[in-house]
Amino acid sequence: MQGGASAQFSLIPMNLAAPESSVDYVNTGHWSQKAIAEAARYCRVHIAGDAGGDYTRVPAQDELHFSADARYVHYTPNETISGVEFGYIPQTRRPLIADMSSSILSRPIDVEKFGLIYAGAQKNIGPSGLTVVIVRDDLIGDARPETPLVFNYRALADHQSMLNTPPTFAWYMAGLVFKWLKSAGGLAAIGERNRLKARTLYAAIDASELYRNPIAKDARSWMNVTFVLRKPNLDAAFLEGAAAAGLQGLKGHRVLGGMRASLYNAMPLTGVETLIAFMRDFERRYA
Amino acid sequence: MQGGASAQFSLIPMNLAAPESSVDYVNTGHWSQKAIAEAARYCRVHIAGDAGGDYTRVPAQDELHFSADARYVHYTPNETISGVEFGYIPQTRRPLIADMSSSILSRPIDVEKFGLIYAGAQKNIGPSGLTVVIVRDDLIGDARPETPLVFNYRALADHQSMLNTPPTFAWYMAGLVFKWLKSAGGLAAIGERNRLKARTLYAAIDASELYRNPIAKDARSWMNVTFVLRKPNLDAAFLEGAAAAGLQGLKGHRVLGGMRASLYNAMPLTGVETLIAFMRDFERRYA
Repeated sequence: MQGGASAQFSLIPMNLAAPESSVDYVNTGHWSQKAIAEAARYCRVHIAGDAGGDYTRVPAQDELHFSADARYVHYTPNETISGVEFGYIPQTRRPLIADMSSSILSRPIDVEKFGLIYAGAQKNIGPSGLTVVIVRDDLIGDARPETPLVFNYRALADHQSMLNTPPTFAWYMAGLVFKWLKSAGGLAAIGERNRLKARTLYAAIDASELYRNPIAKDARSWMNVTFVLRKPNLDAAFLEGAAAAGLQGLKGHRVLGGMRASLYNAMPLTGVETLIAFMRDFERRYA
Repeated sequence: MQGGASAQFSLIPMNLAAPESSVDYVNTGHWSQKAIAEAARYCRVHIAGDAGGDYTRVPAQDELHFSADARYVHYTPNETISGVEFGYIPQTRRPLIADMSSSILSRPIDVEKFGLIYAGAQKNIGPSGLTVVIVRDDLIGDARPETPLVFNYRALADHQSMLNTPPTFAWYMAGLVFKWLKSAGGLAAIGERNRLKARTLYAAIDASELYRNPIAKDARSWMNVTFVLRKPNLDAAFLEGAAAAGLQGLKGHRVLGGMRASLYNAMPLTGVETLIAFMRDFERRYA
């Protein structure tokens, strides 16, 4: 549907939860906090788990404590800013909702385990301005009266997402990406490729004296590999040298600093290898 | 902002009008009726004017009767389906809101006369999935609590429309279109070109024995020229012949039938001339 994933922070409670209802949210960092802040305007939010500290890990299953009457459980499988990712799908009795904006299509997903999956297109699907929402049919149909018609999940489903003019170019581009994914061997093959890309980069970071990834090993993101320089005074020189070597967008999100290499599907393994070669060379010269 | 113009049917009352407030709407056909139906879910809607009948005209200024306490007056300057258009800007004491989806950029607009202008991009601006909203600053800031954050006009204005990732490709394309408009002489020149295109086609229709435009002469749309064949049994042959001549999309909207030639900015005068040549040839052969 139209609008970014952030619109779903509001539209999920509007469509799925009555004002007096309780909803469970797991807090693993920036994006789950955004979702929580918005949901709190619509429902009673219970924090079912909180990674805490610097959000360099995710809560384990036995650290999650759900409300008995929650309408749903929301979590963020991958936090793009810190680069922290769930290595497992939480088991819940209530419907599980996942903001997969930065992890969808990165590997096979067991869709059956979810009540609702949503994902802004602009990481692994296509142009921004399009959001994919996959929702279990029995969860929709009781939207709040104030839900705008074109954002009512039931109305959208009944009209095959064409209640009004859809973002046609973004749809078309998404279709081309889906075909490319299939021709590349599908999600199983893409998943292996992504696992290799991430593993290769984390191994290079772990083997170095200069670079450090602060994320718990079982929660390291495949899509967003963050790292800091142990000598932060070298940050500017690192970014400048990287840009000169054709390596763009490595500066970490402004709320966290450091470096971030995003390895979405469009990034080939050779891109990772080029980055590692630059990092090694930089370390040899400066550190 | 993101989402189509239809989203604004809900977001305008959510952002501008409290639940108990009255709002005035002018009914000139399909799109104003859609706007009215959605507004009625949020406010007390008063119909300030209704073209009535087959909606082949627009109400005159002295046929418009506004409520004293209306929060705003909404109208649809151009109805794309019937091809009926206001030849004047209604004078109102309350803020005037216009759905300019199909008329924006077709000629100069006196923006000062409006409290809010909105327009889906996909006619004269760029790709679908983007909607332009121009709103007077004093009208915003009192959105209903249930308004989704990313659709709150105040929050969007405070963040230069980048509260979340905008539809970047659509923005970029819109920028190219704006540059093209400037290089073509700006809206004054485009307006003259559009006036000429419409006048030329209406003149050809009026001069024929076969074709007929049912719209009142002072309410004929510049952008959507509708016409019917006086022998409707020729409709299929007309459309088939037109398609063979490279003239696409002439079939009228399914709710109305007949023919519709949309003359948005991207259509050159030569396109209109080609259509007229085909129409004359068809009339000579079949009528």
